Amino acid sequence: MEQRNAGNPIRCKAAVSKAPGQPLEMEEVEVAPPRAHEVRLKIICTSLCHTDITFWRMKDFPGMFPSVLGHEAVGVVESVGDHVQEVAVGDTVVPVFLAQCGECPDCLSPRSNICSALPYRPGGMPRDGTTRFSLAATGEPVHGFLCVSSFAEYTVVDVAHVVKLPAGPELALPPEKACLLSCGVATGVGAAWKVAAVESGSTVAVFGLGAVGLAVAQGSRMRGAKRIIGIDLNPGKFEIGTPTGKKLGVTDFVNPNDIGDKNVSEVIKEMTGGAGADYCFECIGLVSVMAEAFKSSRTGWGKTVVLGVDGSAAPVSVPSFDLMRGRSVVGSLFGGIKPKDDIPVLAHKCLDKELELDDFVTHQMGFHEINRAFDLLTQGKCLRCIIWMDGACSEENGCS
Amino acid sequence: MEQRNAGNPIRCKAAVSKAPGQPLEMEEVEVAPPRAHEVRLKIICTSLCHTDITFWRMKDFPGMFPSVLGHEAVGVVESVGDHVQEVAVGDTVVPVFLAQCGECPDCLSPRSNICSALPYRPGGMPRDGTTRFSLAATGEPVHGFLCVSSFAEYTVVDVAHVVKLPAGPELALPPEKACLLSCGVATGVGAAWKVAAVESGSTVAVFGLGAVGLAVAQGSRMRGAKRIIGIDLNPGKFEIGTPTGKKLGVTDFVNPNDIGDKNVSEVIKEMTGGAGADYCFECIGLVSVMAEAFKSSRTGWGKTVVLGVDGSAAPVSVPSFDLMRGRSVVGSLFGGIKPKDDIPVLAHKCLDKELELDDFVTHQMGFHEINRAFDLLTQGKCLRCIIWMDGACSEENGCS
Repeated sequence: MEQRNAGNPIRCKAAVSKAPGQPLEMEEVEVAPPRAHEVRLKIICTSLCHTDITFWRMKDFPGMFPSVLGHEAVGVVESVGDHVQEVAVGDTVVPVFLAQCGECPDCLSPRSNICSALPYRPGGMPRDGTTRFSLAATGEPVHGFLCVSSFAEYTVVDVAHVVKLPAGPELALPPEKACLLSCGVATGVGAAWKVAAVESGSTVAVFGLGAVGLAVAQGSRMRGAKRIIGIDLNPGKFEIGTPTGKKLGVTDFVNPNDIGDKNVSEVIKEMTGGAGADYCFECIGLVSVMAEAFKSSRTGWGKTVVLGVDGSAAPVSVPSFDLMRGRSVVGSLFGGIKPKDDIPVLAHKCLDKELELDDFVTHQMGFHEINRAFDLLTQGKCLRCIIWMDGACSEENGCS
Repeated sequence: MEQRNAGNPIRCKAAVSKAPGQPLEMEEVEVAPPRAHEVRLKIICTSLCHTDITFWRMKDFPGMFPSVLGHEAVGVVESVGDHVQEVAVGDTVVPVFLAQCGECPDCLSPRSNICSALPYRPGGMPRDGTTRFSLAATGEPVHGFLCVSSFAEYTVVDVAHVVKLPAGPELALPPEKACLLSCGVATGVGAAWKVAAVESGSTVAVFGLGAVGLAVAQGSRMRGAKRIIGIDLNPGKFEIGTPTGKKLGVTDFVNPNDIGDKNVSEVIKEMTGGAGADYCFECIGLVSVMAEAFKSSRTGWGKTVVLGVDGSAAPVSVPSFDLMRGRSVVGSLFGGIKPKDDIPVLAHKCLDKELELDDFVTHQMGFHEINRAFDLLTQGKCLRCIIWMDGACSEENGCS
């Protein structure tokens, strides 16, 4: 790739979030060149995750607006800053919200995926907290988001936040699939694979059938789970889920609105001969559901994995007596995925068709239609919308 | 051993609990012969555990009084009921409150120690809920306790609740040590060994330095923990703990009364360079302490193990955001110990001096002094009182 812009700012389009809950506005922005340990990416496609929506709606998040949201994407390295050796111009990479510096005690341990050198931060570049975006017209700085900021044609990401994809003609994962591995789907698969380490023959209950929950189902199926019970309040999810979910491994559905006076945990115990599920996954982000998931878990070894973030910061509440009877509650960020180690493994599993991602892509569209993706996800009408940067979206790639 | 009583009731002494919190009364009781799957034991010695005190104090526990409490003991098989093949008359055994039937899904799985065929029950024999005790004078039934009822010269226990000790002249574990393996000490060691699987070089925080907490310290030391921080409010515990605790592995002490306005979790973070402890153990049974233990645990992989039972049935409350950052909360009964599999392993570790139990026995006394043991334990003045059945207590065995 020609490096004609290397070292210089690039002017390009970005969908800028200017006020809580308001439609993004397409703006010309200036994207500064990458500093040391940074790379500038040309985004191929991006997708929308619930975490974008959570922050986009947040009224009391200081210094959030204006900002470039977006943290699920795939891109090509356009230029690199000093000290970057891991990737080179032209490499196809997945940017990720979680760093892997590779040198801190957490990165060196197989037990943690939470880099302690470059901790998770919602805005700003990880090493200095600044932004590489500004409005072209006024020079006003525009905040970054989750160290990725993919709702722009170009973005700058720290090298600790990029994962190089398997290269070579037979290893070219389609961009819309690689994109899914950068957050939600990897989180769900990782939770079943790395956090729960679901055992073959198990019964699994998945609370919330968005992309993360269905990815938990898919991961559990890959691990040999015998029965996968999906729980969701939204009947629309079952419409998505019925043909889709079966393929992804969901074997039974429970809608809490259809079970009369019973609690979901009672229904799950009835469905499992009184025992409860071996593994319960909370993929919504409500502490009340976390408590119900815990109650649905089996005495002796029941494990409840919490994946959703409760925006209210309310505590999870579990009865101590039930806990004592051999149950556990485990939290994880990004499903325990260590980005640079595990995303390439998942990419190979996609190439080998062990991990099936086709059904997660329910919609595709051009960059100019990004606000429609927000509508679809907030209305529960899609799993993942792939948003192709202008020029890359065509009928050929299924862009509607 | 002569089986002159086999098949007949035995009259003997028992310390009977007649009202909540009131001193036990020495009574002559009749101990029925063992039914099918049961064994009758002659108790050699017993000890007092906090769980005895918790139930003894309980005002609203239906059908609890009168009862024979006690569930830490060692005894000799006096006679056996039908279908008992695992132990024979004359075998030295440890009775345990937790069953291991050996055939249910839980007993067959390495992941659970909570037998689902004979679930934990506070009173009555496990298969039919009846009792084998009655007052000799009146014939009034006397309830059993935790399937053990060791505050009597003889007791009847289900074979699923007895563990045969290693036999042979070189394998004769002194009774006062075997006794400790039947509940509290095994619970603490098991929590470090089986539930947490403490990794070598780790930092451990132990909340509550009773026998269970100090056994967690001992178990953590055996697993190679580098730093073991003991937390207790009672300065008397430090007097017990200072010479004793050091041997058991405790390296640092924190008294929450001596840290000003700080929380224990803040102090532990300061002591660990900001990180927090790798493993936190709650050995008291207070949900407020469980929450503080959780806060003291490290981001990335911090594991909080809950060992204490909160009598209030209040829920454990943990912030969901902190949970998501790679932390977990694990409950266990009996420290994850599978009685018949793991107690013999611990017995061998005692014989090999890998597990040091000398320091846990702070007092020894005769059966007639049992109420003094209640005083000592409620006042926090002892770790374990060994109560020798009358006739077995002498100056030779250190009985004071």
